[in-house]
Amino acid sequence: MTDKHSRRATASEDNLMRIFTVPEAADSTLGRIEQQLSVDLAGFLQGSIAALEQPLAEIEQHFDAVEIPRQPRFVSDYVDDIMAHLVAQSVHTAAPSFIGHMTSALPYFLLPLSKLMVGLNQNLVKIETSKAFTPMERQVLGMMHHLTFGQSHDFYSRHLHSASHSLGAFCSGGTVANITALWIARNQLLKADGAFRGVTREGLNKALKHYGWDDLAILVSERGHYSLGKAADLLGIGRDNIISVAVDEHNKVDVGAMREAAEALKARNIRVMAIVGVAGTTETGNVDPLSELATLAAELNCHFHVDAAWGGATLLSEKYRHLLKGIELADSVTIDAHKQMYVPMGAGMVLFKDPTLASAIEHHAEYILRQGSKDLGSQTLEGSRPGMAMLVHACLQIIGREGYEILINGSLEKARAFARMIEAEADFELISEPELCLLTYRHVPEFAREALNKALAKGDSAKLDAINGELDSLTRAIQKSQREQGRSFVSRTRIAPKIYGADKRTVFRVVLANPLTTEQILKEVLTEQRAIAQSETDILSALKAVCG
Amino acid sequence: MTDKHSRRATASEDNLMRIFTVPEAADSTLGRIEQQLSVDLAGFLQGSIAALEQPLAEIEQHFDAVEIPRQPRFVSDYVDDIMAHLVAQSVHTAAPSFIGHMTSALPYFLLPLSKLMVGLNQNLVKIETSKAFTPMERQVLGMMHHLTFGQSHDFYSRHLHSASHSLGAFCSGGTVANITALWIARNQLLKADGAFRGVTREGLNKALKHYGWDDLAILVSERGHYSLGKAADLLGIGRDNIISVAVDEHNKVDVGAMREAAEALKARNIRVMAIVGVAGTTETGNVDPLSELATLAAELNCHFHVDAAWGGATLLSEKYRHLLKGIELADSVTIDAHKQMYVPMGAGMVLFKDPTLASAIEHHAEYILRQGSKDLGSQTLEGSRPGMAMLVHACLQIIGREGYEILINGSLEKARAFARMIEAEADFELISEPELCLLTYRHVPEFAREALNKALAKGDSAKLDAINGELDSLTRAIQKSQREQGRSFVSRTRIAPKIYGADKRTVFRVVLANPLTTEQILKEVLTEQRAIAQSETDILSALKAVCG
Repeated sequence: MTDKHSRRATASEDNLMRIFTVPEAADSTLGRIEQQLSVDLAGFLQGSIAALEQPLAEIEQHFDAVEIPRQPRFVSDYVDDIMAHLVAQSVHTAAPSFIGHMTSALPYFLLPLSKLMVGLNQNLVKIETSKAFTPMERQVLGMMHHLTFGQSHDFYSRHLHSASHSLGAFCSGGTVANITALWIARNQLLKADGAFRGVTREGLNKALKHYGWDDLAILVSERGHYSLGKAADLLGIGRDNIISVAVDEHNKVDVGAMREAAEALKARNIRVMAIVGVAGTTETGNVDPLSELATLAAELNCHFHVDAAWGGATLLSEKYRHLLKGIELADSVTIDAHKQMYVPMGAGMVLFKDPTLASAIEHHAEYILRQGSKDLGSQTLEGSRPGMAMLVHACLQIIGREGYEILINGSLEKARAFARMIEAEADFELISEPELCLLTYRHVPEFAREALNKALAKGDSAKLDAINGELDSLTRAIQKSQREQGRSFVSRTRIAPKIYGADKRTVFRVVLANPLTTEQILKEVLTEQRAIAQSETDILSALKAVCG
Repeated sequence: MTDKHSRRATASEDNLMRIFTVPEAADSTLGRIEQQLSVDLAGFLQGSIAALEQPLAEIEQHFDAVEIPRQPRFVSDYVDDIMAHLVAQSVHTAAPSFIGHMTSALPYFLLPLSKLMVGLNQNLVKIETSKAFTPMERQVLGMMHHLTFGQSHDFYSRHLHSASHSLGAFCSGGTVANITALWIARNQLLKADGAFRGVTREGLNKALKHYGWDDLAILVSERGHYSLGKAADLLGIGRDNIISVAVDEHNKVDVGAMREAAEALKARNIRVMAIVGVAGTTETGNVDPLSELATLAAELNCHFHVDAAWGGATLLSEKYRHLLKGIELADSVTIDAHKQMYVPMGAGMVLFKDPTLASAIEHHAEYILRQGSKDLGSQTLEGSRPGMAMLVHACLQIIGREGYEILINGSLEKARAFARMIEAEADFELISEPELCLLTYRHVPEFAREALNKALAKGDSAKLDAINGELDSLTRAIQKSQREQGRSFVSRTRIAPKIYGADKRTVFRVVLANPLTTEQILKEVLTEQRAIAQSETDILSALKAVCG
């Protein structure tokens, strides 16, 4: 379908066979298109904007047709079309001024490797469609397991490639990783026992009856990721049984309060199934006291899972890995390579300290996943899935520990520098100190700052609420306008800064993972936010009114 | 790290910044590596073998280290290494003689597009990290919805881009798609009701108590995919409550038997939550009587899900889409684009006939997925996920309906031709007639064929079992040896061919989706199998002994 003699593509068997045939030379039509695409992609990735703002409604008009086109199209025509309407209107997640989310720049060497990975089209569910990709993925899981749990070499030589063991599961992302961990925790707890064949066979209702509990519960910080609620829903535990425990002023879960919550549950005959520690909260980037949580989990005889989807990469830094102390005591740990490990989207992992843990979710079929096979699919939530582990493998080898040391330390130290920068400005307020490379803050005009301080001194909570309410509007307006201007991007969330009481406040949220983000860019982000604030005259008037 | 002056890569901040910078020219080191990779990949994809056999234990030795290397490596060194130890030992899923699984060749235009997709690194969980990719994915889901359910243009103009509606969910594969559909079915059935806040909030135990049922059940053919058992486990329903209903001699579920099973469940106060129809069984490629199942689902007032993960692509053929008649009556349908739609691994979809259905699993968070947002993540099982929908979008446009018509019809007709070829050979036995493009068969030496026929005529089931037992060994040995020789690959499974009674027998399983597979290749597959059989002298002697 790449014949350029006529602009009308035709579906013939010959043309179709051709699209499945690899082009022989770089100067073929497809070869030329590929080169142009690489140039265009490079141009896009080097652009210094975060997004080109076009109203979503306008973009949607290009994606309105629901009938699959009858006629085939030339690849070149299709590429022209998506460059204009899809690529140009996508988000520059790699831009150094895109600091609002956990998606960051990628090392360029991953792009040709991705093409290779996609072209090989391996299916990791089974050896028969993946062969060497299976031991390669197991090695990646082994390396991450070693990084996290640091077991002996003998341990790894016994379990790394063993058909009856599993050091972890590779999956599309942290959500599936967390669900997998809690699924295992539930099935381990409600395992077969005498005539009872286990929750996996008989279901939750009979399992609870057999064990004599009224319900199950999961204890986690109020800063836990929303995927935990999803897991509780999916697993039949119910979102109300995710017990949300208060955090201290550093956004770390209050272990004392968690212990009390556990006791209250016990009194109600509700069994604590798992404690989840957060190693890098999504909203503030803080790490729970993992060692203390491990102690509590041991007391309660329950599963201890650590959600380090985002923060787990910090283990790659000798200098800062102490921030995750206690993670080695977990039964299972979630780490996303597509967050701080600089791997493209779609590379999640859950690691199991005990390599027999995943037998709680083991399953088999007649044509694959046969007993004793090394098919990875017999102990994963997902079925067919791609060879994404190869990209993690590449990063671990090409960047190496020394490279990650520089990258991770650079991010954490940049966040600390940005925090000092914010504190040095009279009209910005640091809301949460960065523990890893994530922080929150807001813009507070000087007159509002003074009014806030006075109200705080007086303990005038009505006034505090009124001022903070207007500041919420200001923060929202600045974030939206900055996003629309497209030069830079920060995100926003709602958290309750302790000094202002229990109400949630809107704040800017910044994740500093892109190695190309400079302090100069961070200065410009603040300058831009201040300028936008000054143009928000209606909100400023309302703010002045409540401050007055 | 691509500096070639010294072979010892060093981690310096400068080197690290360079790997995040796009190469400016095709003649840069990385540009040259990329070109070489493309050539090597092309060579691999054009190879005519299905796999290069090296014992797994040997391959594993290259993936034995569990310590992440300290030193960075040059990209070129890494590439040399994986070309030798990973790529060369991966499976040639694109080879025309690799006909054992659903993974097939890819149109070459997808490779540069994949690099583009990975390079853009969009995260489809939210608009802020995907922008135009969100309406693009919605369009793909809309096109597949229209293909399946054919609703009015007014319907699509109201729902396609609506924040409060969802025509489907894109996901990593059919397993997640099936789980999502059954999760929705469970939550819809056990929804909030008066003071009861729904299963999503209160969990399965309280939900069953509230509604007064002892358990839930899912009805499906005994040929249903193993992911349904996984879903039942995960959702707390229990694998025993997947009621496996017998199939007729064409491997289609017996609807009468299913109705009886439903009645028996009702008598035990077990509520049928969903019926799953299979549109393309994994083992034999048959389609259940979908219209009749829809009628039964209406009678039982339960959810009707169709698992068309593999067979759904047949809807793209005007000539053969009638084989899936009744699919338009389903509440939800699973289709994998990475199976017969020629898209790389990782492109699953579940479609919802009613665009409000997914509200049963809706969830929100403070920093994303806010109420009223168009963030796709508020109604998906997965969280962060890549822009794979772009590759489906590309195939639908570039191949078009006319192109798919030729591809799909070609596969189905090739399977029919292969079936006739098998029947024409005295020493091969067709086990299941291809309805779509999948069939099963086995090699039965002529002397064994005669003995089987005699035993059948006499009704000598002991003899039949003895002969079939030896034939099972023969089939396993041939499949293994053929795989190891690497010229071609068929898979094997165990099913119960009605003429031989209720016991499962080992058979070859072939999926004819690769457009480059010729009838000549299929002839050679049979010739190779016959030759291998003749070399299996021990099994042949044993077979002769039981036939005698």
